[in-house]
Amino acid sequence: MNVHRFALTPGEPAGIGPDLCLLLAAQAQPRVLVVVADLELLHARAAELGVQVDLVAVSPGRWPELPAPAGTLYVWDTPLAIAAQSGQLDPRNAAYVLETLTRAGQGCIDGDFAGMITAPVHKGVINEAGTAFSGHTEFLAELTGAPQVVMMLATQGLRVALVTTHLPLKDVAAAITGDRLEQVTRILHRDLVEKFGLNRPRILVCGLNPHAGEGGHLGREEIEIIEPCLERLRADGMDLVGPLPADTLFTPKNLEHCDAVLAMYHDQGLPVLKYKGFGAAVNVTLGMPIIRTSVDHGTALDLAGTGRIDTGSLQVALETAYQMAEAAKAP
Amino acid sequence: MNVHRFALTPGEPAGIGPDLCLLLAAQAQPRVLVVVADLELLHARAAELGVQVDLVAVSPGRWPELPAPAGTLYVWDTPLAIAAQSGQLDPRNAAYVLETLTRAGQGCIDGDFAGMITAPVHKGVINEAGTAFSGHTEFLAELTGAPQVVMMLATQGLRVALVTTHLPLKDVAAAITGDRLEQVTRILHRDLVEKFGLNRPRILVCGLNPHAGEGGHLGREEIEIIEPCLERLRADGMDLVGPLPADTLFTPKNLEHCDAVLAMYHDQGLPVLKYKGFGAAVNVTLGMPIIRTSVDHGTALDLAGTGRIDTGSLQVALETAYQMAEAAKAP
Repeated sequence: MNVHRFALTPGEPAGIGPDLCLLLAAQAQPRVLVVVADLELLHARAAELGVQVDLVAVSPGRWPELPAPAGTLYVWDTPLAIAAQSGQLDPRNAAYVLETLTRAGQGCIDGDFAGMITAPVHKGVINEAGTAFSGHTEFLAELTGAPQVVMMLATQGLRVALVTTHLPLKDVAAAITGDRLEQVTRILHRDLVEKFGLNRPRILVCGLNPHAGEGGHLGREEIEIIEPCLERLRADGMDLVGPLPADTLFTPKNLEHCDAVLAMYHDQGLPVLKYKGFGAAVNVTLGMPIIRTSVDHGTALDLAGTGRIDTGSLQVALETAYQMAEAAKAP
Repeated sequence: MNVHRFALTPGEPAGIGPDLCLLLAAQAQPRVLVVVADLELLHARAAELGVQVDLVAVSPGRWPELPAPAGTLYVWDTPLAIAAQSGQLDPRNAAYVLETLTRAGQGCIDGDFAGMITAPVHKGVINEAGTAFSGHTEFLAELTGAPQVVMMLATQGLRVALVTTHLPLKDVAAAITGDRLEQVTRILHRDLVEKFGLNRPRILVCGLNPHAGEGGHLGREEIEIIEPCLERLRADGMDLVGPLPADTLFTPKNLEHCDAVLAMYHDQGLPVLKYKGFGAAVNVTLGMPIIRTSVDHGTALDLAGTGRIDTGSLQVALETAYQMAEAAKAP
């Protein structure tokens, strides 16, 4: 695997993804970064933003050797169906968005890229175009043949992985099965070792119920499902602490001595992560044979073309992918 | 109402409550603070801690006029059934614990106290003694005849109130009814006006589901229950924003422009509050005809008598009660 070349997909062409890529070019890049996008779109958006960026076309077999200097962006030209207007969704460009993801993901599988970084897509317009699409994560899981993936968000000093993700709250408790918890925990543990270079990661596991069930008074899933599962995994040598009450878990002392928190559901773990990491959090997909990180914000259609955007989350997504690739190539 | 006299209950006599009260006496108090506790217990704990505190017995009709100077604590002597040992629970003292709460609560109702501040009790040992007891809040709600109370936690720059509190997660969705949400929101709004002196409080309301249901794709309670309820209340003049996704609600900009966050359940709102306010959060019970604040930690039986404790949360609980009493007496 070439650990120096990475793919960046700007996502929805009417959103801020193209803008973020262009603003990145203000600095020299530390790795070879290939933006998978329509070249004309980037030219037009650069003009709209009033930034000078030298857009250099690259493609398989014609990859650059060295990272781009300041003012330059490498682009694997991937044509839009129709010119994109900032802020104006157009279902005719949905296939383009998916093609950029396929090129980047397949490139990772084939070893052309060490990892991919994604800017936001707009799920609604892709579905409107007639393609069932529930998100980057599911699309890439299918492309790479991963049977189960795990969503993890990370910021300085805190990683939070989720056992369940985009489920209505009423369905969460029933979805916390011993099998699911075991699969997710094994993926999290393995990827912390293999992609983050941690020797024996310590994982703090939240309970499902308030006060982690308080000895069964506030729910029995901790006793009947979570504790037995953690015991099985500890017998395999994993360093798992919990189930712990989610409201008192996120103390400085606890976080200092752990490598990740495993939350049972979306709003149990992400509010504190996004509060702590505001503007500088990254979404990492675990469980795939490729490295994929993402910004943690949306398409912000109203800000496309304005320049009033912050590349903070994208910078963290890039750095995280670079670090993961370094850890993954280590013996 | 006498806004200068307050009751402080140390709670479980084997826990750190008595210690916290004694450590408070290192500084002069800004208000008349009456500790409702066994005098001998406080003498014994002071000796164990090696602190010099002048314990002055006070009682109804013999209230002090001025706040206690440094080194002095006013005590309304309330006898234990049996001498308490640090760290050793004894069900025979359960009735004592409840008597301290009754004295303080009834004193608030009668106008002897402007408010009460509670240190932690141990629910298990009270139930073991044969008294059904699910917490301070429920006990005081019954004492004061409050039909519905609301739990709110507060720290510097953030207040979080809860629509549901100590429910198993599987029961939360069904408990979010329009009636309950309306009652809780009205209590929160009224107490922010009447007890916190806010003119037109702005409340940010979380959705129930991840991404606040994402337009119905991740749950329909926002559309069917929460939004219609908020609309009704807005028609009454309340400044309510939401339902908002809980994971992106807690931004500095949002928090700067709101007076409270209303979370639908315990682990949606409290992890971020306790992370932000670590060691300095206070629990406030809304909806009662009296003012009651509490520390946000437990009895810490293993630390009783050691002196290795932090009065931070108690200090915030006291200051919050004092501020609420000032706001409540204002016209």
